[in-house]
Amino acid sequence: MSLSIKDDEIDIVIGALRPDLTSFMNEWRTIFSRFHLIIVKDPDLKEELKIPEGFNLDVYKKPDIDRVVGTSTSTIFSGYSCRYFGYLVSRKKYIISVDDDCYPAKDNKGILVDAVAQHITNLTTPATPFFFNTLYDPFTEGADFVRGYPFSLRSGVQCALSCGLWLNLADYDAPTQALKPEERNSRYVDAVLTVPARTLMPISGINIAFNREVIGPALLPSLRLGGEGKFRWETMEDIWSGMCVKVVCDHLGLGVKTGMPYVWRNDRGDAIASLRKEWEGVKLMEEVVPFFQSVRLSREATTTEDCVAEVANVVKEQLGSKDPMFARAAKAMVDWVKLWKSVGSSTSSPGA
Amino acid sequence: MSLSIKDDEIDIVIGALRPDLTSFMNEWRTIFSRFHLIIVKDPDLKEELKIPEGFNLDVYKKPDIDRVVGTSTSTIFSGYSCRYFGYLVSRKKYIISVDDDCYPAKDNKGILVDAVAQHITNLTTPATPFFFNTLYDPFTEGADFVRGYPFSLRSGVQCALSCGLWLNLADYDAPTQALKPEERNSRYVDAVLTVPARTLMPISGINIAFNREVIGPALLPSLRLGGEGKFRWETMEDIWSGMCVKVVCDHLGLGVKTGMPYVWRNDRGDAIASLRKEWEGVKLMEEVVPFFQSVRLSREATTTEDCVAEVANVVKEQLGSKDPMFARAAKAMVDWVKLWKSVGSSTSSPGA
Repeated sequence: MSLSIKDDEIDIVIGALRPDLTSFMNEWRTIFSRFHLIIVKDPDLKEELKIPEGFNLDVYKKPDIDRVVGTSTSTIFSGYSCRYFGYLVSRKKYIISVDDDCYPAKDNKGILVDAVAQHITNLTTPATPFFFNTLYDPFTEGADFVRGYPFSLRSGVQCALSCGLWLNLADYDAPTQALKPEERNSRYVDAVLTVPARTLMPISGINIAFNREVIGPALLPSLRLGGEGKFRWETMEDIWSGMCVKVVCDHLGLGVKTGMPYVWRNDRGDAIASLRKEWEGVKLMEEVVPFFQSVRLSREATTTEDCVAEVANVVKEQLGSKDPMFARAAKAMVDWVKLWKSVGSSTSSPGA
Repeated sequence: MSLSIKDDEIDIVIGALRPDLTSFMNEWRTIFSRFHLIIVKDPDLKEELKIPEGFNLDVYKKPDIDRVVGTSTSTIFSGYSCRYFGYLVSRKKYIISVDDDCYPAKDNKGILVDAVAQHITNLTTPATPFFFNTLYDPFTEGADFVRGYPFSLRSGVQCALSCGLWLNLADYDAPTQALKPEERNSRYVDAVLTVPARTLMPISGINIAFNREVIGPALLPSLRLGGEGKFRWETMEDIWSGMCVKVVCDHLGLGVKTGMPYVWRNDRGDAIASLRKEWEGVKLMEEVVPFFQSVRLSREATTTEDCVAEVANVVKEQLGSKDPMFARAAKAMVDWVKLWKSVGSSTSSPGA
């Protein structure tokens, strides 16, 4: 990994929704073993975790979560949201987070993809959100800015978030999965690109990395569906948080990249059984997207914490009366910023 | 080519800047021979054209151009701008245009790319400019909309323009070519994507296709550099026209796609010798990009012709006094709309 940053600036955060992490950890061993791992056990999970030997890691379970945030707050970390506890207690500059049903992917040449190296490359090279480069990320080896790209924009801006993709089972919603049960993504697109400023996207939490120091407080567990379940397509917390992050990055002049690295996602779950739950999330986006497209933050919002607080206020004002779910999300966002400030200034380590 | 459109709805327009098209045409023969070709000879070119047998084509030379638009107007078609004459006299729905120093490319598997088929697929499937899909063009086979993509936006909008890319010699400016003479693009990115609404990009005229009925009048020869030459990196007409097209597409709710198909671009020209000319174009973009980013058209502008006329007015008002080149471009845009209307309503065929 030809990077200017050190391995100890990175935390890999894994939310454990399944008790047996043996095959997951073993598949990732060659890539993950050099880094510190934070494993957060879904507080709803009763069984003991099974984790193979040979990793440098801290495991956080329900009692640890209760101790750090209090028993009344710890419910926000159930299900896929458990990973956010890892984001909260990390003290590293960069976080990489991968769902526990994903394995390392292979590229077009059959070579194992080092997802950590690619995410860190994405985060440590500039992003170019103000003008689109047709040859994708100009900072990729062998690529460049094309004719007509203004020289004044070629230095780019800091990249705060890197969104990776998925081979095999892609991140589709339950209706798409149910309608096209055979659909698998086999297209390995050899590209990274900056998502342009003011362009929104559905950010998936399955395979992401971010600069925690810069944008950390904007990755937050706040929108919870009524019937949220333990399959990705039954959740919306990452999509909501992603809209929030993108708006904050646009306001602060930070970049968001998408594309490589890929992870290989395994099949699990019954999409048809999830359809009833997921329709709620699907309908939700019809309100959420126009809302986030219209949000503009004030000049006074100069930090990520400020920005999240402002977004929370607008959510409360404009969406709060439409659905109690939005009012709860707004409150959770405000609470999160407070929690981030208080936990961020204290030291915390997992229980014995 | 599994397309719903017929071969006779397509014109392939080639601007001939070199007299000998033999190898160019032969390389493209398997792809081009089913279609009607319009070859426009650069009016500055003195030598006779050499074109191999076996194609269905019309060739337009300086006397033909003079006859259709008059001798005073025909100068706008010199150099790379000669292709615009082909756009003007075509009566087809779709135009595909490739520079005469480009050959068919091969994909990652070594298979010859049918650039015509890919462009037509891009133009005949919807574009999605209002929300970014992380798995790129959802209408590509095997792809889909990801979780969180609003269902109300999934039908997309009509695609008006398809911008292809380049392998080997990419479309860099003269400074980049001169600084990195060995740089070649070998990355075949297996993707097409919609450029989001309100995102500008440097559109290259090297390898493009468009729906002539919908957006034709916005592809126009209007910005000419003082020292414009006969190498791509010495020109800006396509970049300027591309900014104009994108603004018009955004206003009219039309889509622009970029990515595949690739063409293989051959080396020619001396980048260092071009440096003096090209700096003018490079400096220009510092004014042009912020200008086009700020242009907003009125509700009254409901056709492409209306939109181009409005853009021309704003160019004249806001940029006209900064450089006579902009004032000339504004006038050329107004003239082009008139020309499009008058020539478009008459029939025209090349001279005997």
